[in-house]
Amino acid sequence: MRFKVGVCQFNPELFNVSRNLAKMESLLSDVSADLIVLPELAASGYVFRSKAEVSSCAEQPQNGPTAQLFKALAKQNKTSYVVGFAEKAKAGLYNSSMLVNPDGKINIYRKTHLFFEEKKWFMPGDTGFKVFTIKGSIKVGLMICFDWIFPESARSLALAGAQIVAHSANLVLPWCQQAMITRSLENRIFSVTSNRTGLEKNGTSKLKFTGMSQIIDPTGKIVSRMNETEEYVVVKEINPLKADDKNVTEYNNLFTDRRTELYLS
Amino acid sequence: MRFKVGVCQFNPELFNVSRNLAKMESLLSDVSADLIVLPELAASGYVFRSKAEVSSCAEQPQNGPTAQLFKALAKQNKTSYVVGFAEKAKAGLYNSSMLVNPDGKINIYRKTHLFFEEKKWFMPGDTGFKVFTIKGSIKVGLMICFDWIFPESARSLALAGAQIVAHSANLVLPWCQQAMITRSLENRIFSVTSNRTGLEKNGTSKLKFTGMSQIIDPTGKIVSRMNETEEYVVVKEINPLKADDKNVTEYNNLFTDRRTELYLS
Repeated sequence: MRFKVGVCQFNPELFNVSRNLAKMESLLSDVSADLIVLPELAASGYVFRSKAEVSSCAEQPQNGPTAQLFKALAKQNKTSYVVGFAEKAKAGLYNSSMLVNPDGKINIYRKTHLFFEEKKWFMPGDTGFKVFTIKGSIKVGLMICFDWIFPESARSLALAGAQIVAHSANLVLPWCQQAMITRSLENRIFSVTSNRTGLEKNGTSKLKFTGMSQIIDPTGKIVSRMNETEEYVVVKEINPLKADDKNVTEYNNLFTDRRTELYLS
Repeated sequence: MRFKVGVCQFNPELFNVSRNLAKMESLLSDVSADLIVLPELAASGYVFRSKAEVSSCAEQPQNGPTAQLFKALAKQNKTSYVVGFAEKAKAGLYNSSMLVNPDGKINIYRKTHLFFEEKKWFMPGDTGFKVFTIKGSIKVGLMICFDWIFPESARSLALAGAQIVAHSANLVLPWCQQAMITRSLENRIFSVTSNRTGLEKNGTSKLKFTGMSQIIDPTGKIVSRMNETEEYVVVKEINPLKADDKNVTEYNNLFTDRRTELYLS
């Protein structure tokens, strides 16, 4: 099966939603693919210092500015997108990502494991690790940034049937890109990590993001790894059905070899 | 706290138990440490072609030749050892490792996840992921080789309190050494992987082992990584109590941040 998966990295500008959406539109308008993954909090930026600041950039999941742009792009390019955004819900704010499909349908994932001061602005996600179908049969699971350090995140998605994990990120620590190779290997899944670039300041707060967005195949091979700073899109052809084969050797299947009765949880 | 942990890699000779024990004795007799980890199936070699071949090298866990040598070394050097061996039990054969302490006490771990043709000779381990205390208070967990690819192995040991995972291995695939960095990081534990070296042939069967034994700290730092071919011992000083600190940031604790109610198992 031929399937084109893309990853887009760029440097969002804090609080400047309209500029960030225009930037993503300019990067994506001419790109054709089946699925493209974008960073965490792509429309809003990241270095917030209060809940009010987050709220000023937060959006309705189904019809906010991010949803509107990506619904239009999805329809125009016949592409599904996964993009991170600050979600305004009745119960409060979530660090979420949306899967936007060409038919206009939107699925939401709310970040399970919040990082650092995110705990001050966002509610812990309550959606869990669900898998969504695109293009009729391809299973996509969503996780966000720090979810990577908990092996249970990608494991849960793989056990739920994910062939591709769409991992929107704003990475500042040096380990994730290498660890995602392990995540792909141990679950025999494709992982697509989209990480933002740039240095972001807000008052005395400052963070440098590491780029190096990447696509990893189910055998741990790096299909593509981007550079640390530039804003661009990479599209690669993969066969998602490869992720259905959990055999490491003729004697070893990563799922049926699991011995859950011996595991502590 | 000062604690000396060592790793020994060498090239066992298939079926030649007395030669392999003599080799380990010569490598270890003058080395002082608190804990030294040795490879999987260190006394017997690995490339078996029948259950009868394994049986010819298999040992009683408490008083076989491997147990006898390491009890003597442990007493002499005041060192604990973890070493892999083929275990002869009433129910059958196990791919096991033993923790041998200076007081003569021996604890056994039986490999949970068997690799490739091991399934034809060995029974799947039934001990599970238990943690043992050495030097009065230091918690050591045992796993063997292919257990690495299942994140549940190291996770179970860490949840059981392991500060150090002693990982005896006979690695032939290229991924484990890098993946063990992720295992240390995601659990904030020390991991000590002892991997054998050399090319082993038995009839038409042949395997090349990758060496590169290593000690990784709870932040994913490589304390020591050995070369691919040589037979030697490395000893490093570590502080096992570092593994008790599961905080990644002032807001993030790798254990209390887990959200088990959302995980699939």
